[in-house]
Amino acid sequence: MKDRYSAGWEKLKEIDGKAGENLIENLKDIAPDLARYTIEFPFGDILSRPGIDLKSREIATIAALTALGNAAPQLKVHINAALNVGCTKEEIVEIIIQMAVYAGFPAALNGMSAAKEVFKNRNII
Amino acid sequence: MKDRYSAGWEKLKEIDGKAGENLIENLKDIAPDLARYTIEFPFGDILSRPGIDLKSREIATIAALTALGNAAPQLKVHINAALNVGCTKEEIVEIIIQMAVYAGFPAALNGMSAAKEVFKNRNII
Amino acid sequence: MKDRYSAGWEKLKEIDGKAGENLIENLKDIAPDLARYTIEFPFGDILSRPGIDLKSREIATIAALTALGNAAPQLKVHINAALNVGCTKEEIVEIIIQMAVYAGFPAALNGMSAAKEVFKNRNII
Amino acid sequence: MKDRYSAGWEKLKEIDGKAGENLIENLKDIAPDLARYTIEFPFGDILSRPGIDLKSREIATIAALTALGNAAPQLKVHINAALNVGCTKEEIVEIIIQMAVYAGFPAALNGMSAAKEVFKNRNII
Amino acid sequence: MKDRYSAGWEKLKEIDGKAGENLIENLKDIAPDLARYTIEFPFGDILSRPGIDLKSREIATIAALTALGNAAPQLKVHINAALNVGCTKEEIVEIIIQMAVYAGFPAALNGMSAAKEVFKNRNII
Amino acid sequence: MKDRYSAGWEKLKEIDGKAGENLIENLKDIAPDLARYTIEFPFGDILSRPGIDLKSREIATIAALTALGNAAPQLKVHINAALNVGCTKEEIVEIIIQMAVYAGFPAALNGMSAAKEVFKNRNII
Repeated sequence: MKDRYSAGWEKLKEIDGKAGENLIENLKDIAPDLARYTIEFPFGDILSRPGIDLKSREIATIAALTALGNAAPQLKVHINAALNVGCTKEEIVEIIIQMAVYAGFPAALNGMSAAKEVFKNRNII
Repeated sequence: MKDRYSAGWEKLKEIDGKAGENLIENLKDIAPDLARYTIEFPFGDILSRPGIDLKSREIATIAALTALGNAAPQLKVHINAALNVGCTKEEIVEIIIQMAVYAGFPAALNGMSAAKEVFKNRNII
Repeated sequence: MKDRYSAGWEKLKEIDGKAGENLIENLKDIAPDLARYTIEFPFGDILSRPGIDLKSREIATIAALTALGNAAPQLKVHINAALNVGCTKEEIVEIIIQMAVYAGFPAALNGMSAAKEVFKNRNII
Repeated sequence: MKDRYSAGWEKLKEIDGKAGENLIENLKDIAPDLARYTIEFPFGDILSRPGIDLKSREIATIAALTALGNAAPQLKVHINAALNVGCTKEEIVEIIIQMAVYAGFPAALNGMSAAKEVFKNRNII
Repeated sequence: MKDRYSAGWEKLKEIDGKAGENLIENLKDIAPDLARYTIEFPFGDILSRPGIDLKSREIATIAALTALGNAAPQLKVHINAALNVGCTKEEIVEIIIQMAVYAGFPAALNGMSAAKEVFKNRNII
Repeated sequence: MKDRYSAGWEKLKEIDGKAGENLIENLKDIAPDLARYTIEFPFGDILSRPGIDLKSREIATIAALTALGNAAPQLKVHINAALNVGCTKEEIVEIIIQMAVYAGFPAALNGMSAAKEVFKNRNII
């Protein structure tokens, strides 16, 4: 198990160090195994895969979470992550605008609110 | 209106010529305006925007439609489109696998079935 | 129970006689109670309520089922129902087009495919 | 572009003046184009169409957003809009109750909470 | 009507007395009929059915609401309800973890946040 | 990796041998890694966990997939699985009926169609 966990933890720190710590912290008293799975499977197995660059992976994640519209906290984590792995603010805005086509204007408008909050916290807007 | 329509039509042909013709054909007797809007807004306004490359846009679309899981015909159109604008088969597979994380394994497995059907029709599997 | 059931059955026949019979028929060997609940609650309790006309109720149902995008058989039943209670073909098309705004173009396009199938079966397209 | 924008802006003011100003205001520093698209496409192209009255359009929107359950801010805007274009409080309540049938009781209960908040802000409850 | 209402009210009190009172209280000025339907149909008709034990029913409800991800208030009510009818904290955590498989990690993580809030309010974490 | 894979494979065979073979077979030419992940994570990590019995886990899965309504093939696999691990036909029907409350009647009716198909294939209806 160690290898997947270690690889996941490294990937998590590369993408968003604080989110990783918060995840562990918030889950350790209720479901530490879910924290471990989150590190092992999404970060250790999937986001660590070669085959497509990390920036493309974050674009895909922002698109999916904006379209689903039911996971604002995770969307904010991944907007931060996208900025951390080389997406520009403008590219993130483009992807969220595009979701108006596939998931409707309310989904895009709510995704943009999430992005605005992240950009403000990083003082880039 | 002409400019948005023409730009959208050009973009639609660039992405998938046949899907464009089918769209027009299928809607002309019931809702020709919806065909026109589909050309003008998604293709003319959005997918024609600069700011992020078309390959990234198709990655975002495949991610969103796989995650939503309620639009198999459009997902197939955009898997074709992704191949047309430079995504490799392997990159498309990567994005669909990644959706297991954000929308669950059933969404990813059904997205993969759609991809397999497209790849078979293009004789690339 | 009888009153709710009778009222629901009358409303179901008013809206779509055949769909009612099919519902009973399809469920009688596996879940006859679900058939009964469907007659009693949606038709007996809700669609029989005064306060808003039946045409508006069918508009709301078409909008909801097109937006949710996960219930094609029921969407077709209610497109038929809408025609039965006085909606025109053009009004149904309008509502489905409008869903492109709130649930995205794929939802609207798939809703339109359902409408086209219903219109064809009724020879009105 | 001007005509669609102007028509959309007029329609937006007819439906909900303040929401229009807020939309522009909130998006102008992050994605002014999304504000423009929201005015042009939903309001300029779609809600301005003839073929069905504006009250029916707002009924459809309330139904869709209550059923989807992932866009509380937009649902509140459109409950206000429905009141502005002639829906009564009672009719809005009817449509939201009806969503218990198509999207489940939690969706209907959460839609009703949104309606209650709007009605309170307008001092009509 | 009385029998279904009485049966539903008894079931509601068995499952969660306070939630029942709050439901009635919150809806009585805007949609008392929706309160009545909620008591009659979900609690009177469905959750009162024999055929499967109440604990299994609450497991099913927690699974569904975690997967749908659009009804946090109702999810919390039913996490409380599950504890009231004999589920352990550990079993609830198991079901929510399992949803990572079927609806994705964000849905599971947000479900766990809801559970944590409930467990804290009951001082069991 | 072997241990998780082996444990997952054993669990998959316990739950549904044929579905396991089909999964591998269908994915081996397009995304063998997704087949491996499906065995390792859902079956090896999650469904193999102690803490709640396998029958309760299948009840949760049927509830979630019926409510989501976008994964008919997987729903059928898990209705079979539920029968394999000790759920009765009647219990499965109960859980699907219950989803009318949380996800609406169309979701429940479509879930019941899936169940009917499975029951017919097993000659138990």
